[in-house]
Amino acid sequence: MSISIPPQTLTGRDPKLAARAVGLPHSPIRKLADDATAARKRGTKVYQLNIGQPDVPTPPQFFEALRSFSEPVLAYGHSKGHSDLLEAWSGYYARKGLDVLPSQIQITVGGSEALWFAFILICDPGDNVVVSEPFYTNYFSLAMAVGVQLHPVASDPSRGYPLPARRDLEAAIDDRTRGIMICSPNNPTGTVLTRDEIATVVQIAEERDLFILSDEVYREFCYEGTHTSIWQYPQAGNRAILLDSISKRFSACGARVGALVSRNATVMDGALRLGQARLCTATVEQIAAARLMDLGDDYYSALADEYKGRRDLMCERLGHMPGVRFEKPAGAFYLMATLPIDDADRFCRWMLTDFAYEQQTVMMAPGSGFYATPSRGREEVRIAYVLEKPELDKAMTTLAAGLEAYPGRRPA
Amino acid sequence: MSISIPPQTLTGRDPKLAARAVGLPHSPIRKLADDATAARKRGTKVYQLNIGQPDVPTPPQFFEALRSFSEPVLAYGHSKGHSDLLEAWSGYYARKGLDVLPSQIQITVGGSEALWFAFILICDPGDNVVVSEPFYTNYFSLAMAVGVQLHPVASDPSRGYPLPARRDLEAAIDDRTRGIMICSPNNPTGTVLTRDEIATVVQIAEERDLFILSDEVYREFCYEGTHTSIWQYPQAGNRAILLDSISKRFSACGARVGALVSRNATVMDGALRLGQARLCTATVEQIAAARLMDLGDDYYSALADEYKGRRDLMCERLGHMPGVRFEKPAGAFYLMATLPIDDADRFCRWMLTDFAYEQQTVMMAPGSGFYATPSRGREEVRIAYVLEKPELDKAMTTLAAGLEAYPGRRPA
Repeated sequence: MSISIPPQTLTGRDPKLAARAVGLPHSPIRKLADDATAARKRGTKVYQLNIGQPDVPTPPQFFEALRSFSEPVLAYGHSKGHSDLLEAWSGYYARKGLDVLPSQIQITVGGSEALWFAFILICDPGDNVVVSEPFYTNYFSLAMAVGVQLHPVASDPSRGYPLPARRDLEAAIDDRTRGIMICSPNNPTGTVLTRDEIATVVQIAEERDLFILSDEVYREFCYEGTHTSIWQYPQAGNRAILLDSISKRFSACGARVGALVSRNATVMDGALRLGQARLCTATVEQIAAARLMDLGDDYYSALADEYKGRRDLMCERLGHMPGVRFEKPAGAFYLMATLPIDDADRFCRWMLTDFAYEQQTVMMAPGSGFYATPSRGREEVRIAYVLEKPELDKAMTTLAAGLEAYPGRRPA
Repeated sequence: MSISIPPQTLTGRDPKLAARAVGLPHSPIRKLADDATAARKRGTKVYQLNIGQPDVPTPPQFFEALRSFSEPVLAYGHSKGHSDLLEAWSGYYARKGLDVLPSQIQITVGGSEALWFAFILICDPGDNVVVSEPFYTNYFSLAMAVGVQLHPVASDPSRGYPLPARRDLEAAIDDRTRGIMICSPNNPTGTVLTRDEIATVVQIAEERDLFILSDEVYREFCYEGTHTSIWQYPQAGNRAILLDSISKRFSACGARVGALVSRNATVMDGALRLGQARLCTATVEQIAAARLMDLGDDYYSALADEYKGRRDLMCERLGHMPGVRFEKPAGAFYLMATLPIDDADRFCRWMLTDFAYEQQTVMMAPGSGFYATPSRGREEVRIAYVLEKPELDKAMTTLAAGLEAYPGRRPA
């Protein structure tokens, strides 16, 4: 089947990837996957605390909808999203006290595409967005892919990673800054922003004429007080873009259903045109996701109770490990801990390649991957508490043993 | 639930969208949707020949797989794609005589994301790709979204839209050109490139050090001779990026399953890192798509026979309409026709808003949307023959009546 070309035309050169593609990092959350596989092959049990993959069952309504799909042709859907899902998601927000119209929602391929759309809509190549650091690692990759820069502002680990000081956020804004980004409850820190902190962001955005990107995919995972949404600030109206996803709250990461939400009609029109460029999101998952939107308070409180119990257990165990520093996070299902080690990348790999305690080990995400600033995060790890408590307890025992045994341990 | 901010900080300004977002066009394929809805509300039957949505049933194996998914948690999949699908797709290519390894495949959210990945991987913002014109309209939107320009080179309608002359392609290449793009069988023209035409593209790419993007989503829709794939040119090895999708060949547009395929390990590594940035594609659809990859020759020949019959019918009917010019296309399920009208945008809209023949009308895609050059395509329409023959026949009768009645008709 091969077709030949006269060899004199062949130079044997290799064309080069674009600079932005060369610069894309491997996911720090997924890059140790091969080492984990090798550990398992040696018979070591690996507690996977590296990735935000919930273990809670997906609600059965989702699979019922999947099974009852009966169209003969799996056709393109509307580029904005399936009307059932738009209506149902609007209903979900209403039950949370947020008055969002279906027209203010653009369905996306997970929260990832919502973020991608937001970057494209507000930034031309070379523009930037200010974000507190550490941040969810894919912010960096998704921004870089579309020519957008992130301006990171350090958040203080010793105070539980609050919003950075106003003057520090303002100092990061330049004439190419088009937005300021928040994530609450936060991945990777678990921090829940206060009303005053969000009000500060709204004020800065007003004064400097910026968009606000608000990642609220962990809204249902708040263990102290209540969640504050950017949508509660109507005066931020045309500046606010809310990014959402069903992945975490419904344990449906593999459905790839998210949303970009805004009161700004120009943003929504741009999002629709971007949506048309990629046609639509998966039809069946949208119909199934719509069935989850009317789950009652019982579902969410049971979910939060489960994760709160895990958080408390993990903090209790970590609190007894010498040299480990952290603040108890108020939300999400992550915790950033500073460990008494030389280098978290080395430690996390060593746990998989060189260590086992009673034939068990722990997989975590090294902190450096959540920072854009090269020197930061070297002693930090992100731990996702996505296992049931008995498993989490054994994982913490294993981590404690690993910290004892690690050759690069720092003296207390 | 609203939270107030001191009013003195509020300027009431509206932040502006990025220039690239402002420039994104509405889909020419979908922009008449509201007019079609209004026509239907008036009781007019609308033959939808505007969109490449096949009416052939999705193979039942797909839905069986959907129904039998039994994992309790719908978890993230591997960023590269589900291993079952990678293996199965490799097997599909093998049955087509193409030796593609699973490692040379990156699963994407439809062919759209494959194209998006390709643009990001080979072009930095401001770089460009050369493409013959008319081209699939979303090439333009997807490129613009990621800061990539298209350099269009006119293809000749009177000769059935062949590959433009080599000198014209070469003249469109400048020092920011990173690739040359082909689509065979072509959307919107139905043209199937010859081996010599593809060999010319391979030679130009070699001489000018460019990537080749080859959109082959319509490979199974060839009615004269056989399809030639870029994969049959091993000497194009590290330059070739094949873009593929299950949407058309399996009538599964709403599944959103596509692939980027390359022998270039650097490209595949970049594609994986991009894949990690957006985590994964929908899990269940990948498992279901894997079940379709071993459909036999009978399936594909029945599919091609059906569409060939439709093509022949449509060409027969169009051939008898005075002033309508076209060449019989060899593949895909589209035809670009030059009509005896003042303006195809006006005509296509008029057909929906002002015309009906026996309470029927026809929806088509105006040609201008498939050109980047502003003056081109004004008298052309793209007609998708995605209805069964009796329906198509009635649609052609309706189109003929519309051309007779249209006030902007040109004299013969």
